[in-house]
Amino acid sequence: MPRRIVIVGAHAAGVDAASAARKTDRSAEITLISREKHVGYSRCGLPFVIGGHIASFDDLIVFSPSFYKMMKLTLKTETTVTNINPTDKTIEATNKAGATETISYDSLILTVGAYSFIPPIKGREKQGVYSLRSIEDGQQIDKAIRDGAKNAAVIGAGLIGLEMAIALKERGLNTAVVELLPQVLPVMLDTDMARLVHKMLVEKGLRIIVGKGLDEILGTEKVTSISVAGEQLPADIVVVATGVRATTELATKAGIATGETHAIKTNARMETNVESIYAAGDCAESINIVTKKPACPQLGTVAVRHGKVAGINAAGGYTLFTGVLGSAVTQLFDTQIGVTGLTEFLAKRAGMATVTGTITSKTRADYYPGAKHIKVKIVVEKESQRIIGAQIIGGEEATQRINALSFGIQKQMTIRELAKTDTAYAPPLCETWEPMVLAAEMALMKLR
Amino acid sequence: MPRRIVIVGAHAAGVDAASAARKTDRSAEITLISREKHVGYSRCGLPFVIGGHIASFDDLIVFSPSFYKMMKLTLKTETTVTNINPTDKTIEATNKAGATETISYDSLILTVGAYSFIPPIKGREKQGVYSLRSIEDGQQIDKAIRDGAKNAAVIGAGLIGLEMAIALKERGLNTAVVELLPQVLPVMLDTDMARLVHKMLVEKGLRIIVGKGLDEILGTEKVTSISVAGEQLPADIVVVATGVRATTELATKAGIATGETHAIKTNARMETNVESIYAAGDCAESINIVTKKPACPQLGTVAVRHGKVAGINAAGGYTLFTGVLGSAVTQLFDTQIGVTGLTEFLAKRAGMATVTGTITSKTRADYYPGAKHIKVKIVVEKESQRIIGAQIIGGEEATQRINALSFGIQKQMTIRELAKTDTAYAPPLCETWEPMVLAAEMALMKLR
Repeated sequence: MPRRIVIVGAHAAGVDAASAARKTDRSAEITLISREKHVGYSRCGLPFVIGGHIASFDDLIVFSPSFYKMMKLTLKTETTVTNINPTDKTIEATNKAGATETISYDSLILTVGAYSFIPPIKGREKQGVYSLRSIEDGQQIDKAIRDGAKNAAVIGAGLIGLEMAIALKERGLNTAVVELLPQVLPVMLDTDMARLVHKMLVEKGLRIIVGKGLDEILGTEKVTSISVAGEQLPADIVVVATGVRATTELATKAGIATGETHAIKTNARMETNVESIYAAGDCAESINIVTKKPACPQLGTVAVRHGKVAGINAAGGYTLFTGVLGSAVTQLFDTQIGVTGLTEFLAKRAGMATVTGTITSKTRADYYPGAKHIKVKIVVEKESQRIIGAQIIGGEEATQRINALSFGIQKQMTIRELAKTDTAYAPPLCETWEPMVLAAEMALMKLR
Repeated sequence: MPRRIVIVGAHAAGVDAASAARKTDRSAEITLISREKHVGYSRCGLPFVIGGHIASFDDLIVFSPSFYKMMKLTLKTETTVTNINPTDKTIEATNKAGATETISYDSLILTVGAYSFIPPIKGREKQGVYSLRSIEDGQQIDKAIRDGAKNAAVIGAGLIGLEMAIALKERGLNTAVVELLPQVLPVMLDTDMARLVHKMLVEKGLRIIVGKGLDEILGTEKVTSISVAGEQLPADIVVVATGVRATTELATKAGIATGETHAIKTNARMETNVESIYAAGDCAESINIVTKKPACPQLGTVAVRHGKVAGINAAGGYTLFTGVLGSAVTQLFDTQIGVTGLTEFLAKRAGMATVTGTITSKTRADYYPGAKHIKVKIVVEKESQRIIGAQIIGGEEATQRINALSFGIQKQMTIRELAKTDTAYAPPLCETWEPMVLAAEMALMKLR
């Protein structure tokens, strides 16, 4: 009898799990079940459709129906899994017509994702208050803009909040961002680096309010303004981007354990504590490579890597997930911002003594037209002199510098090794002394 | 008495050596001596001035007179060092007025560079035949273009040859490149990767002739055409870019040993076999990190790294040079091309059993406008499964991917580690599955 693999959820983690499972077991029966109408699309692309960079929400659908057919995957959309019964290895699912069926599994993979967390702000139920998680969310915001919204407020200055604020600004809306913490990108950047981003966003015309909470969302049925520390700001659209939380209700009900981060606990094979049940993606916890502690960065890259490992193991293969560094990058207007490993703040909070090296340099030879500024900050653990984190703000090639430093962290590169590393150079593409190397020199000086 | 440091040569290696020496010993007397009129400029920028991307040759001068003043460096230009006397630690130098002086040193650093090697082609003495090493060379070529040259031929399809051919094409000349070896970029790329570059260059309007030698440069006093395998090609300008050779005459005369690569042999402190004499830059040999064998890649990045180590040690400090990987990158029209470590060809020649992984992917999310193609090839040593080389051809961020893989090679990353590495992603900046990771997967499949 073929192996029956059931996957709950059908986005980054789910589809990659299905694909890896199929490559591992050519004869398995693989079923993907999703609550949503649209599946296999890129959530990360949503702000860029709203901003007008991508023509249509449909463009975000990475996996077309032909993919499922080619991979011999059974896809059930608009179907909700209501129960997992680990004892007889079945799940119960209800489709949109209300019909319930019981499906047996040999392996079950939960890729149920996360949901937008909306804090208990007064007035949050009003029309015009949105979060941004699904295509439907995006379509609603897009419609509100097309219906003539003039003013917008974004609550939360994290990655999604800022990407969203820029999209609204690009569509011509007068846009403010309100962040309770005292800086933008509070998870991603240290204060010194965040200051630069803050300044740039203001110069580009966004109103940025940090260190202040939202008092209330005002309006009758429909939002008309928000009140922040007593000041009223007009707003026809309010997007709440205060983070996401792992979806764990279904799992918890079935006795599947969650961890410190409140996401589903997994081992290196992405197995949960319940036999034959795996978890992957935004709902699943893994281990941070530097701190060795539970982490749940809820990033697209982690989701696909999780999914692949879960899929291979669920299909009878053997592979391990090696942990996360939280490498992430975004583009805000023309500025690229990236992070990998621990910030100085998080390293200190984890009890580490650190030294940092920061440099401002250029992305091309000084004399080459179009050279852009780049700022690199490297965080070093003092005792081992190993690199444990990096932040980059720059005009070009921030992403792959983050990847390079991620490789370094994963391979326990010391700051001295980084300072002596063999790098590539050409006038139109970078400086002779690579900025990462210069930042390492700065850190080394403090270690002498 | 202050330490007397004499540096022969004043470009990348020389000036960086001086700068590092000054930071190491605040009171040293540091003298830089150069044959040339222009010093401290970027040779790598020359093709881009000729191509019109950089306004003037003067822009290439990275170190202005104020730098030497600030760093308290004595600079003697248009002065030729004719002899080194290691016994009494002196050198003899002659300035352009013909005056000779003897200068004492405590430490001597040779950063005498390399010279363009021009093979014994019939007709190479004719007017209109150039090489490209100095600003003067560049100015002559520029003048020939302004004087109405219509047709050009470049001999050699290495990095400089192709950069030069593109510059000539950009200035409106009908340009052909002739390469004796059967492919373009023969040192940098394997045949499969070079084919892509060849195709792109032809599409952009260059005539590329590979696997054929130049018979003769024709013309009376001035070149009018070249003959290649019997075919005559019109040429008002011929640029010979068949590589450079380390300048070693002065060193050899003084008993300084050269190595396998015919460059000056050095140890990890950049010391030569003669006490208190260091060598750095294009004239100096170092060790390849992968093969552990002598190597002399003659790259700007190596020159500055060499110079820094030589300068610190010459000034009484202690630091080691950790070797070269030959990481290099260039931009040809809109295509970026990079390499690090060994090509498949060179690895095989070094006696290594290899496996490779090659992938063609995109530089941004598939749905994000402006996504460019990128091709990544990774070379793996079969027994250790370690990455030993990589080549990239792509529209964006090739340089920093090369740096990332260089970090991996230096830290002995295995191909499996690369396949599982934590990378950063955002739709406008890269794909969810980083192309380097996909290439690693391809290699892994062959190892299973």
